[in-house]
Amino acid sequence: MYNLDIILTHQEINVQAVKGKTCIAIDTLRATSTIITALSHGCPEIIPVGSVTEALHMKKNKAYEDYLLGGEIEGQYIENFHLENSPLDYCNGNLQGRGIILSTTNGTRTLKKLKEARIVVICALLNAKAVAEWIIHQKSDVIICCSGRRGSFSLEDFLTAGRLAAELRVEKNNLSISDLAFTAAAFYENIKKSSANNNTIFKILKNTDNGKRLIKAGLEADIKHCSQEDITTLLPQYRSGSIKQIEIPDLKDSMPRTSVI
Amino acid sequence: MYNLDIILTHQEINVQAVKGKTCIAIDTLRATSTIITALSHGCPEIIPVGSVTEALHMKKNKAYEDYLLGGEIEGQYIENFHLENSPLDYCNGNLQGRGIILSTTNGTRTLKKLKEARIVVICALLNAKAVAEWIIHQKSDVIICCSGRRGSFSLEDFLTAGRLAAELRVEKNNLSISDLAFTAAAFYENIKKSSANNNTIFKILKNTDNGKRLIKAGLEADIKHCSQEDITTLLPQYRSGSIKQIEIPDLKDSMPRTSVI
Repeated sequence: MYNLDIILTHQEINVQAVKGKTCIAIDTLRATSTIITALSHGCPEIIPVGSVTEALHMKKNKAYEDYLLGGEIEGQYIENFHLENSPLDYCNGNLQGRGIILSTTNGTRTLKKLKEARIVVICALLNAKAVAEWIIHQKSDVIICCSGRRGSFSLEDFLTAGRLAAELRVEKNNLSISDLAFTAAAFYENIKKSSANNNTIFKILKNTDNGKRLIKAGLEADIKHCSQEDITTLLPQYRSGSIKQIEIPDLKDSMPRTSVI
Repeated sequence: MYNLDIILTHQEINVQAVKGKTCIAIDTLRATSTIITALSHGCPEIIPVGSVTEALHMKKNKAYEDYLLGGEIEGQYIENFHLENSPLDYCNGNLQGRGIILSTTNGTRTLKKLKEARIVVICALLNAKAVAEWIIHQKSDVIICCSGRRGSFSLEDFLTAGRLAAELRVEKNNLSISDLAFTAAAFYENIKKSSANNNTIFKILKNTDNGKRLIKAGLEADIKHCSQEDITTLLPQYRSGSIKQIEIPDLKDSMPRTSVI
């Protein structure tokens, strides 16, 4: 029997908690949604970095000179960057074959703390069902790592974690779920049960702290995009500082790469 | 507009977060349930202490020589103590007029961290509705402080916090509720909605980490007791190191002291 647990903020992640485990990184608004969107629109690789300085430094390296610069600082545009952290930015342009160096506030920091994990997969509502199905085949403890915001709980990350936990709490999955994972699953299921239509998650995300901040910045369309469930089966993996579509030979046929929009 | 937020473990409580705020201390299994039960059975005062040594030292003081010693270490009985941390212990004996020095693992530690709060009220499912009604009259920010277990989230504390948040999320209450408080309210409401009978909360508490530990120790009856909602309107207040029934002259008539069992 393996364990399924959740960590609520990247500040709480430590080596001991994640070492040797299957880790699922979530930053629903917006980093992990952006990463999933970019990869499903032809971007072959994303390098997440922790600061603008690091991004600019990397771009000077000959190996990365063709890479686009993307990201945000506290939700704001960064001068001289090609792309923001808006997932919609990654739908419109031609990303085919172009790598991206991505600097974001919380999402990148979460990934940087997962170096000791057995494997790290990136999740948002956009690909949650595919991630849950993939987890079932892992023979290890699973930690769902929410990014949170400024050291605090983020409802939208907890909701995505709850989506995973709800899929995984079925007994046959041989996963022992923690109090927190149980709570997240019940929270997600409640929202789905009470939803008259598909807009419920969009409405809830608009009302979160992050959602309100994005609306103020005129980015409601981003929330709408990120609130979509299971529009892709793409599984991005973070390994050795780089994010690429996961290579699972035996699952390749059953999980084709699909387009986000 | 005041804010309502939740802290999930006593380890996360810091002076900055609670200073000048109305704080609600929760340790559903079992410290705060025990405190509420003891006060509603005639105990006039409880002194929460952080260790057995501190309890024994205080008992030697002439002012406390008549006090009973109660508490636990990691759920275990303490030698030479009169009472355990089982709320049922506080129903059977004659506590009329007897003060108690109480040493518990998590609950006491939560209280010790709330010295800078504006006011601290003790809550469990047993008195949750009364606490929510009292909160409505407070003109300050409110922090619900869950004790958690060993630094981790406790479902039973979150459920009690959710009960409060569900009562308080009504717009007319003039409280702005955080993402976490919204989540807790939705979690509680889901459980109530799906409950075929009054045993649902009991069943859920039995399945928590703390619940499983108590069942192993033969203390299922404690869980049953602590899972009861609103069986008293008693409001214990923690002030200057001591817990007594709150003195609210204008509410005294409307909130009579009731018996727990």
